[in-house]
Formats: sequence, structure tokens, C-alpha cells
Amino acid sequence: MDELIIIGKKAKQASAQLAHMNSEQKNRVLLKVAGLLEKHTNTILKANAVDLEQGKEMGLKGAIVERLTLSGEKIAGVAEGLREIVQLDDPIGEIEEMKKRPNGLLIGKKRVPLGVVGVIYESRPNVTADVAGLCIKTGNVCVLRGGKEAFRSNRAIVKIFHKAIEECGLDPNMVQLVQDTTRESAVAMMKLNEYIDILIPRGGAGLIQTVVQNSTVPVIETGVGNCHIYVDKAADLEKAVAIVYNAKTHRPGVCNAAESLLVHKDVAEAVLPSIGKSLAKGGVEIRGDKATCALIPGAVPAREEDWATEYLDLIISSKVVSSVEEAVDHINKYGSMHSESIVTENYSHAQYFLDRVDAAAVYVNASTRFTDGFEFGYGAEIGISTQKLHARGPMGLKELTTNKYVIYGSGQIR
Amino acid sequence: MDELIIIGKKAKQASAQLAHMNSEQKNRVLLKVAGLLEKHTNTILKANAVDLEQGKEMGLKGAIVERLTLSGEKIAGVAEGLREIVQLDDPIGEIEEMKKRPNGLLIGKKRVPLGVVGVIYESRPNVTADVAGLCIKTGNVCVLRGGKEAFRSNRAIVKIFHKAIEECGLDPNMVQLVQDTTRESAVAMMKLNEYIDILIPRGGAGLIQTVVQNSTVPVIETGVGNCHIYVDKAADLEKAVAIVYNAKTHRPGVCNAAESLLVHKDVAEAVLPSIGKSLAKGGVEIRGDKATCALIPGAVPAREEDWATEYLDLIISSKVVSSVEEAVDHINKYGSMHSESIVTENYSHAQYFLDRVDAAAVYVNASTRFTDGFEFGYGAEIGISTQKLHARGPMGLKELTTNKYVIYGSGQIR
Repeated sequence: MDELIIIGKKAKQASAQLAHMNSEQKNRVLLKVAGLLEKHTNTILKANAVDLEQGKEMGLKGAIVERLTLSGEKIAGVAEGLREIVQLDDPIGEIEEMKKRPNGLLIGKKRVPLGVVGVIYESRPNVTADVAGLCIKTGNVCVLRGGKEAFRSNRAIVKIFHKAIEECGLDPNMVQLVQDTTRESAVAMMKLNEYIDILIPRGGAGLIQTVVQNSTVPVIETGVGNCHIYVDKAADLEKAVAIVYNAKTHRPGVCNAAESLLVHKDVAEAVLPSIGKSLAKGGVEIRGDKATCALIPGAVPAREEDWATEYLDLIISSKVVSSVEEAVDHINKYGSMHSESIVTENYSHAQYFLDRVDAAAVYVNASTRFTDGFEFGYGAEIGISTQKLHARGPMGLKELTTNKYVIYGSGQIR
Repeated sequence: MDELIIIGKKAKQASAQLAHMNSEQKNRVLLKVAGLLEKHTNTILKANAVDLEQGKEMGLKGAIVERLTLSGEKIAGVAEGLREIVQLDDPIGEIEEMKKRPNGLLIGKKRVPLGVVGVIYESRPNVTADVAGLCIKTGNVCVLRGGKEAFRSNRAIVKIFHKAIEECGLDPNMVQLVQDTTRESAVAMMKLNEYIDILIPRGGAGLIQTVVQNSTVPVIETGVGNCHIYVDKAADLEKAVAIVYNAKTHRPGVCNAAESLLVHKDVAEAVLPSIGKSLAKGGVEIRGDKATCALIPGAVPAREEDWATEYLDLIISSKVVSSVEEAVDHINKYGSMHSESIVTENYSHAQYFLDRVDAAAVYVNASTRFTDGFEFGYGAEIGISTQKLHARGPMGLKELTTNKYVIYGSGQIR
């Protein structure tokens, strides 16, 4: 892949400049991009219209078309997102844990950019601007490899970044879009260890698994969420009904939506019919075990694979369990380590659940829908990590950095 | 690889127990291991003697035999190391950055074990005890795959861990040694994503690159160190001679030893002859560019590959440069991002070097030999990471942990 080697070389070069830009310079670029995105909304929408037309010819379906579709409002939202990134503290250059060692060496941990961040993603063109904005703020060059179906939209957005960067007198190669959208370019990116420091796949489970299995560049796994709500026997049942409804129906297509319901047997009779009614109003299909089906008339029988399925749709699996221990074991067996919630008023059950569930975010008495960079107070996110290395949970600016030990000596030897 | 799948399953099971042991329980195990290591020193030495004998038959050479050789003193040192780990604070369970969000959600970042840590390593049997000790303290199960040449020694050490763990009434599977020492078992470990959370290779550049290239389990790259000392034109030349001598000769076989010397042209004449004399006394071969060879009589001409070579031996490459910028460019081109040092009394040159050199540890006026968990004050280390993800530099207890967001709600929905 000659294109990627050329991109890699340019990226390394741009990285040396971008890594040493101060916050003012980086913010100036971001504000200029935001202004130009608004000014050239029509150009972007025209490119998007061509993508959409061609996508329909290619036979793209509902959800993908929806993600692919831009609008004036969406573009204004992207511009606003960039202005919010400007407001965030720049983590780069901060020195933590500086301390004097007994031999007089002064040792500190300085926060520095990762270098070059590669992102492989699917249909959503707004990811282009979100990722580029977060990377510029953290001094990272980004290499963007979007889907074929969104190529014209992505190119129009990247052109605006280039225009803004050039107007600031800087190297436009700090934001690069891979022109080749074949499978080969994605595979080549996964082997580009010499030029790319970290690779983040954003998209469906298939894409993410392909990257995890094939990449020699370090990967951060994101986003697959088979999230559970466990209604304990000591639950406040009103809260339970509201949380289940919210976690399932608020935005069923996102990774922090609930996909599975577990209910303690002692409250199953009292709460499952109400949950069933409320979910039915939301148009949700329930796939239940025998006990669930006996209590919710419209429920259909669940199959083994349902417990492990992320529907991303108005469907939820449901199972009656005998204890909080059984609930935790079920979650640790079938969950994807994303977001899990217990509804309970019992102190020990809450603590047990928080301790024992192995996931990025574990809740007591709240909807799983809160696992999100904005909701956690980080202002923005580049994805939600479901792996344990480097970053776990919503990844904000800090997660796009690494450290370098800086050591001030006066001639020390060992 | 049936053995590894069985090991993986046992590891996952043991992980659930170990992750929830408190510090007292973990420390009790470590102290018992330390005592038993001292008590059974002879048993370990006997096993080691058989390894050594067989190694010599297999034709193993000097440095490997040295690393493979245990002694009563070395085993006492290992026991002492475990007692030092007992003294360190247990990072597990600590909750950082706990804060109340505007909607009343209380969100904190809890430090938890990674889960199962795999380590693939070569001849040094003491690594077995060091790694197992650090992993127990951090609540991580370890799967150890040592070299064939050290198998009997490793097995003797692991037996002592098992005895101690069982005497404490706990699951011995928290420390597991892979019995199969063929290449196949290493490759199988690299694909064991279902059971192993992180893989750390410890050994030569060949082993590390094999793991980086082939592992689908997330890897932490460790230890290759092509470290430089740059003697600036504003250097205190006496300090320069002492630092170069120390960094090269103190322990030439380790990763933080200096492998390459860069000298500013304005001081080359004044300092290179003294450096040459001092290194000659230490028995060091100098491979220099033309300018070096002209100033140091015994120096031999360097070839291009010398600039990129980690000798791990009494050899150093040497080059005269025209500026601090040229020195930094050379280091960023040929270095391995481990440890780099500038000797200078010039403020701006020092800051430039600290800012621009891309490495785990960057020094002013000190020997690179300080890049080490003990020297940095972390008490122990599982390796020195030369990658940017998750951990960079000496990895202590904290680097063997990840986080889990714990969220206390009162019925919040979005």
C-alpha cells in the first residue's frame, strides 16, 4: 500500500510540528474549522447527497442511511462540538508526580501526545470532524480511514480542516484521509507500526473484531455493549420500571443501551408485568426465559444466543434469576464489559454488584445510558473502550496522551 | 494447544478469587513464599544445576549461562524482593476522581486488577518469582511461559509458590507455569484472547518482535534500549566523561546502558580523547564516525547499522554532531524510545532536548542507568515499557492495574 506509506511519512513529519504547538495555536485552528464548517455547510451537504444517492443504488438500508445522512443542524452540532473542545483544558505538557529522589534527581511524568492516531470507521461522516478535533487538541496527527459509502462527505469535511490549518500557516498533513477505501487499505493500516502509534476502530462488532484479530499496531477496542439491568429483590420497583424503559428505548441503536434484563424471582411477579407493559408502549420485543414468558403475555421465547446478543434495536432479552450472585455470574459470562446496572435498595447487594461485575462502568440505580464522555464530565469522547489496557470506559482528551519521564540531574551516576 | 486452554480456564477461575483478596491475605502469601524460598534454596539450586548441565550440553554461551545461573545469594535477593513488595502500598480498590455530577450521579474511578497477565520470557529464573510476586500483590493471575533452558528452575520456584498459596488456603492456580516450552506454546499464548488480558514479553529483541507481530492479545513492548548520551557544546566535560563511562560500563548487558555517544563538534577535541581513555580502561570498543576516529586512536570506523544497534556489550558507537537539533534528530531516528540523556549547562538546550526527544525517559546531566523501578521510587518493576500505550517507562504495581467506573445513582435516567 504505497498510499499508506506516503501518508505515514507525512504524518510522522506533521507530528513533530503538532506535538509542540501550544494551546492557543491549536484552539485557533479548531475555531477556524468550526466557522468554515458553518460557512460551507452547503458544499458538505452536496457531497453528502451524492454519497446518499450512490448508497441507495448500492442498496444501503435504514440505519446505515440514517447514520450517513448529514443536515444543516447536524453540521452546526459538529461545529459546536469543536467549540466545546476549545473550552476544555489542554492536557499536554502537564507534569505530574514530580519528586526529588534521595540522590537529588528530580523526576516528573510529563503528559505528551501519543503521536499518530489511526481511526477506522464506518458510515458516520461526523466522526471525521469529532476525531480530527480531539486529535488536534491533544497534539496528535490523525489518519482517518472512513467507509466507502461516506467518502465524499468525509473528503468535504477534511478539505475544510485543511483550509483552516493552512490559513493558520500550519502543516495540513496533521489531518489525513485515506483515499483508498478498499479492504486492502484497512488491512495495510493495521500493519503500519512504523508510522501509527494507536489504532481505534469505530463501528460494528464485525469491524472491531477484524481490527483486533489483524492489527499489529496497538488497538483500543471500543463500543460493543451487551448491557444488562438487574432488578434485585430489594429494588424500588418504580425506579426499576423507569430505568429499564429508559436504558432500552432512549436510543436503542447506541452501545450503552440495555440489551438484557435480569429480574430476581421474588419480585418477578410484581415487576415483570409492569415492565412488559411499559416496554410494549415503546414498541420493544421481549425475548424471555420461561418465567418471563409466563408473566409477560407478548414475550417470545429466548434462545441461548440471545443472552450474548447486542441487538442495537427495540428488542430486549429477559431472564429471571435466583440471586444477585447468579445475576453477576450471568453478566460476567455473557456481557461485553461495557455498562451494567443493578436496581436495589439493599446496601450489601449494591456493593457486591459494584465489586464483582467486571465492566468499564458499573451502576447502582441508574440507567446505563450515562456511559458517555459528556455525561461523565469529560466534555467529549473519541470512543468508549471495552478493553482493560490504556483506557477503559469513555475516552476523553487524557486518554489520547501518554507520558514521558523528564529527569533533571546534576551529574548523577550509579 | 489443549494445555493452554486448560491453563486459561483455571486462570480465569482463580482470578475471581485473587481479585477480591485483601492486602493482608496477599501479603501473607508473599511472606510465606519468601520464607519457603530460603528454606528450600538447595532444592532450587539442584534443579538449576540440572538446567545448567543440560544447557551446556545444548551449547549455551556465556551471557545466557550467566542469566540462567542461580546462587544462594540470588535466591536470598529474590526473597528480599518479595518482602519489599509486601511493604509497598496495595493499589487495588483505591477510588480516584470521585465526583458528583449535576444530575446527582456520584462517579468514581476504581483501581482494579487487569485479570490474567501472561509473561513470555527467556533464561532468567528469578523473573518467575519477581513476576509472580508483583502479580499476586496486584490481584492478577499470572501465566508464566519461561524458556526451555530454565524449565526445571522455574518449576522448582513455582512449586514453592503453590505450597505457600495452598498453606494459606487459596487457589494455587493464581500462579501457573506453562509446561510445554516449545515454540507452539508461545504462539498459542499469543492468541489466547479469551483468557489472557495482557501479554508481556521479557527478553531479547527477537522474542519481543515475535510477540508484537503475532499476538492478538494486547502486548506491552518492553526493554529494547538503544540509549544515547549527547555531550552538548555547553557540557561540563568532567561530568560528561563520568556519565558516559557509567552509562556504558556499569552494567553493559542491561537495557538502560548507553549504546551510542553523540558529541558536539565544538567540544569534540576537548572531550573525546578523555572519553576514549576512560572507556579504554573499561575495555570498551568504540565504533566512531570519521571525526571520532581522528580524535580517539583506538576507535574503529562505524557502519550505518551501528547507529541502530543495541550492543548489550562493551561496545559503543560515537558520532560528532553540529547542533543539539542534529543530536535530537539522530536520536529520534535511530533510538528505541527508551532512555536518552543530554550533558549540558545550557538552559535552552536542556529544555529543547527534554521537549523534543521522544522516549520513555529523558535526562539532563545524569546516567541513563537510572531508568528502573527501584531508582524511580516504585519499589519493583515488571519491565520497562518502550511503547506509548497503557504504560511507558518502568512499570510498577500501578501499571498492572486498570480502572472500573463505579456510579452511585438514585434512579437517574436520561
